[in-house]
Amino acid sequence: MGNNLLQGKKGIIFGALDDKSIATKVAERCVEEGATIILTNAPVAFRFGEIQKLAEKLNCEAIPADATSMEDLEDLFSKSMEILGGKVDFVLHSIGMSINVRKKKAYTDLKHDWMSKTFDVSAISFHKVMQTAYKMDAVNDWGSILALTYIAAQRTFPDYSEMAESKALLESFARSFGYHYGSRNNVRVNTISQSPTMTTAGSGIKGFSEFFGYADKMSPLGNAPAEACADYCIYMFSDLSRYITMQNLYHDGGFSNMGMNPSILGMDG
Amino acid sequence: MGNNLLQGKKGIIFGALDDKSIATKVAERCVEEGATIILTNAPVAFRFGEIQKLAEKLNCEAIPADATSMEDLEDLFSKSMEILGGKVDFVLHSIGMSINVRKKKAYTDLKHDWMSKTFDVSAISFHKVMQTAYKMDAVNDWGSILALTYIAAQRTFPDYSEMAESKALLESFARSFGYHYGSRNNVRVNTISQSPTMTTAGSGIKGFSEFFGYADKMSPLGNAPAEACADYCIYMFSDLSRYITMQNLYHDGGFSNMGMNPSILGMDG
Amino acid sequence: MGNNLLQGKKGIIFGALDDKSIATKVAERCVEEGATIILTNAPVAFRFGEIQKLAEKLNCEAIPADATSMEDLEDLFSKSMEILGGKVDFVLHSIGMSINVRKKKAYTDLKHDWMSKTFDVSAISFHKVMQTAYKMDAVNDWGSILALTYIAAQRTFPDYSEMAESKALLESFARSFGYHYGSRNNVRVNTISQSPTMTTAGSGIKGFSEFFGYADKMSPLGNAPAEACADYCIYMFSDLSRYITMQNLYHDGGFSNMGMNPSILGMDG
Amino acid sequence: MGNNLLQGKKGIIFGALDDKSIATKVAERCVEEGATIILTNAPVAFRFGEIQKLAEKLNCEAIPADATSMEDLEDLFSKSMEILGGKVDFVLHSIGMSINVRKKKAYTDLKHDWMSKTFDVSAISFHKVMQTAYKMDAVNDWGSILALTYIAAQRTFPDYSEMAESKALLESFARSFGYHYGSRNNVRVNTISQSPTMTTAGSGIKGFSEFFGYADKMSPLGNAPAEACADYCIYMFSDLSRYITMQNLYHDGGFSNMGMNPSILGMDG
Repeated sequence: MGNNLLQGKKGIIFGALDDKSIATKVAERCVEEGATIILTNAPVAFRFGEIQKLAEKLNCEAIPADATSMEDLEDLFSKSMEILGGKVDFVLHSIGMSINVRKKKAYTDLKHDWMSKTFDVSAISFHKVMQTAYKMDAVNDWGSILALTYIAAQRTFPDYSEMAESKALLESFARSFGYHYGSRNNVRVNTISQSPTMTTAGSGIKGFSEFFGYADKMSPLGNAPAEACADYCIYMFSDLSRYITMQNLYHDGGFSNMGMNPSILGMDG
Repeated sequence: MGNNLLQGKKGIIFGALDDKSIATKVAERCVEEGATIILTNAPVAFRFGEIQKLAEKLNCEAIPADATSMEDLEDLFSKSMEILGGKVDFVLHSIGMSINVRKKKAYTDLKHDWMSKTFDVSAISFHKVMQTAYKMDAVNDWGSILALTYIAAQRTFPDYSEMAESKALLESFARSFGYHYGSRNNVRVNTISQSPTMTTAGSGIKGFSEFFGYADKMSPLGNAPAEACADYCIYMFSDLSRYITMQNLYHDGGFSNMGMNPSILGMDG
Repeated sequence: MGNNLLQGKKGIIFGALDDKSIATKVAERCVEEGATIILTNAPVAFRFGEIQKLAEKLNCEAIPADATSMEDLEDLFSKSMEILGGKVDFVLHSIGMSINVRKKKAYTDLKHDWMSKTFDVSAISFHKVMQTAYKMDAVNDWGSILALTYIAAQRTFPDYSEMAESKALLESFARSFGYHYGSRNNVRVNTISQSPTMTTAGSGIKGFSEFFGYADKMSPLGNAPAEACADYCIYMFSDLSRYITMQNLYHDGGFSNMGMNPSILGMDG
Repeated sequence: MGNNLLQGKKGIIFGALDDKSIATKVAERCVEEGATIILTNAPVAFRFGEIQKLAEKLNCEAIPADATSMEDLEDLFSKSMEILGGKVDFVLHSIGMSINVRKKKAYTDLKHDWMSKTFDVSAISFHKVMQTAYKMDAVNDWGSILALTYIAAQRTFPDYSEMAESKALLESFARSFGYHYGSRNNVRVNTISQSPTMTTAGSGIKGFSEFFGYADKMSPLGNAPAEACADYCIYMFSDLSRYITMQNLYHDGGFSNMGMNPSILGMDG
């Protein structure tokens, strides 16, 4: 029982993998708020069967697409517009992957062809999605495009490795494309910089649970949960956020603006 | 016809002066979304009669209070809790005034006792409001406190004069108090950095209309209107923004992240 | 044995109190680099006799002046220009004081008249210094004005209390006046945001030594020492930094751009 | 006749192409300040003969190296240490190139394989240089690594196109590697964000001269010239900047912190 914030709106959600994915929570909330959506993910992600289950549950289509392939993206937008009966109103990009991180390569010993793959999947895909949509004129005027990011784009969290650079790249694409899409169609482009979240992807990072606890302690409100992130996305897709664009929005319980929390030093009484 | 985003919530709105005030638009939208509110402004502002008219229209109480006086603020919170039947859920601070600007004193020739007055009215009042609420435990857990600010806090707009410093101060109070109020009550404190807006206060600034046009041209979506700002405030008061705190949120059609817009140079075709 | 970076230059140093003051180290390095300087501090600070000793050692004059008094400041600039035989090339503002901090008032229970005093002494004094110099045309073209600040202006360090707001104010004055002084005389105005430093003032803050250790551990190079800060000031006063203006410059061993240092969690091996 | 700021220091300068290159001015100033340097650039850049002439003039070696090739970089550092008789103290990265910009592709119609090439040459090369130096332990303790960047990494300048993303990437590498190199060897890594500069590379960008004029007008001190940028680099390589790390340093006459300059509107009298 939502607030009808997305009544009549249509959107595409990239990156729902399983129950814990933020993209999954966003998809569920979109439907709850009255939107019709298309789910998409890499063909390989479809093997696990979870996406199809989610699609069934949400009574929507799931279309495999490699977000690094312009052909796949064109196909995705074509089919989506056909299924949805017109242009889309919103897009969520929630994609990230690093082989160097997976293989536990030190930041001072990265394999650069893996790095290129990381950037292509995690960041350049965002430009590709927007360029495809822009060329096909696939987003309604005053539509909303959103990507999920992390504060490692601004400050160093050593274990996050080259994903820091991926996110810096991603946020820069949001600003740059935000100008172009805003000027032509009043489409806004933003990124939400989310607290560390216990997703399947997140937990794969070295030292993640220690770090999760640290961020939780540092943030006056604690880490922002995935469900709250989904609420933020709903707002950003709704008509109540029409003039917010080219922004990186921290959703982190206050983490980003804390210099030091006495509770970290055990000094809070 | 809103979305019931503030159903059952109670709040206090500082700074509604007349039809053009952003605070007025926020008050109207709050009521539309199901909230019960109290309007307040300086006693002198009540002389014009506009606030009382607005209160009547919105079927709410209007209480005069000098936001620089701890006594007035205590009285305001006491009465508000009595009238509303309990603690409040949200507070809007939309207050600003500079005698140096009014008297057109150059920034290099300011009167420092007027400057102190400016800071007291425009920024320290925000600390006073929060300190009063905090001491009286007048805000419900997970409540939301918001102030309106301007990007002059980060970058120089010469005609904005000492109001730049006022806004820098205001935003710092938001961060600092956000930690304390968040740690004790999960109350969030944020500022919205709004486009130049054609309010009675705004238009008083030297060269305002030229500047308004410049900002409008620089922003891919144009200047954000007061109505859209009110929508942002509604979201920030709702339960959908619970983990956003200590942030300064740009609501400006993209202005803050534009380096240069070709349309400024007449180079856009 | 310096590098003659300030050969022939003249300057005024506010805030040298004793051996541990950053301003003292700056004064010493200025002389070493060939500058002629005037020391100044509040009349009350002269009671301890340390300033006079430093003046003797550096073979320069020390002039008492209350930096919150326009009369004292005019007198200071007059005398300085007389003694130095002309306009000055650089000014250092290293002044800060908070009664609320001294009296250990909680941030949620501040006395607002003390707060006003804090802002006047720690921040508005900077505007007063610049306004005085500007009106008296007391700084040579391409001169350099500098103030010392702290990252609490951007992020919350709860024990730093209202000094956070003082520093936010100070940095805003630097930007605003930087525009005016730059436009008229190519004079640059900047702030250096220094690591926590074991000065007499610094050590007065509650929990300072724990915090000092935390910042040291968080910073890849450790906390920047006062001597290194003096080197930075020398550079900023020299002709090698002519086009840097309106900036807040972090001098902190990397602290400001660290999100999390594994050594804080004891995870660095 | 310098100030002996780099007496006895050794360094490698990437990117000197011709007389107008910032890297050329830095190289000249390094020698003037007492350093011994190695010049390097892509093999193709050596065809014009300008680098060899500069090397002759500065009495130093010039070694061709493709900064995207790990083999070339290893070879470069090996030879440099041999020629210089030990590890280096500083490195300048001044490299940037975009085929999409050269071919005037619209930002909404970029070729993504060209984009990958742009990132590899303009940004990933910086990681490769540091990784090579780090593995070979080729930089002395307290050494200094520097790259040149542009404010398009933070704000949108549409004609700068994908170079915005390159610079965002470059600055992120500086922060990330700054942590690792700082922790192991106290080596600092920073970027200088320079005003638009009339170099051979700069002038190739569409609408550059209009933009140059705009930035010049917006900046209270005007655009920072290449010579002043070289002075900044000298400081950053000297022992007077030892605790500055992981920073992006604006060298822009005040541009970055101007919101609006009345002279842009023709309103300054």
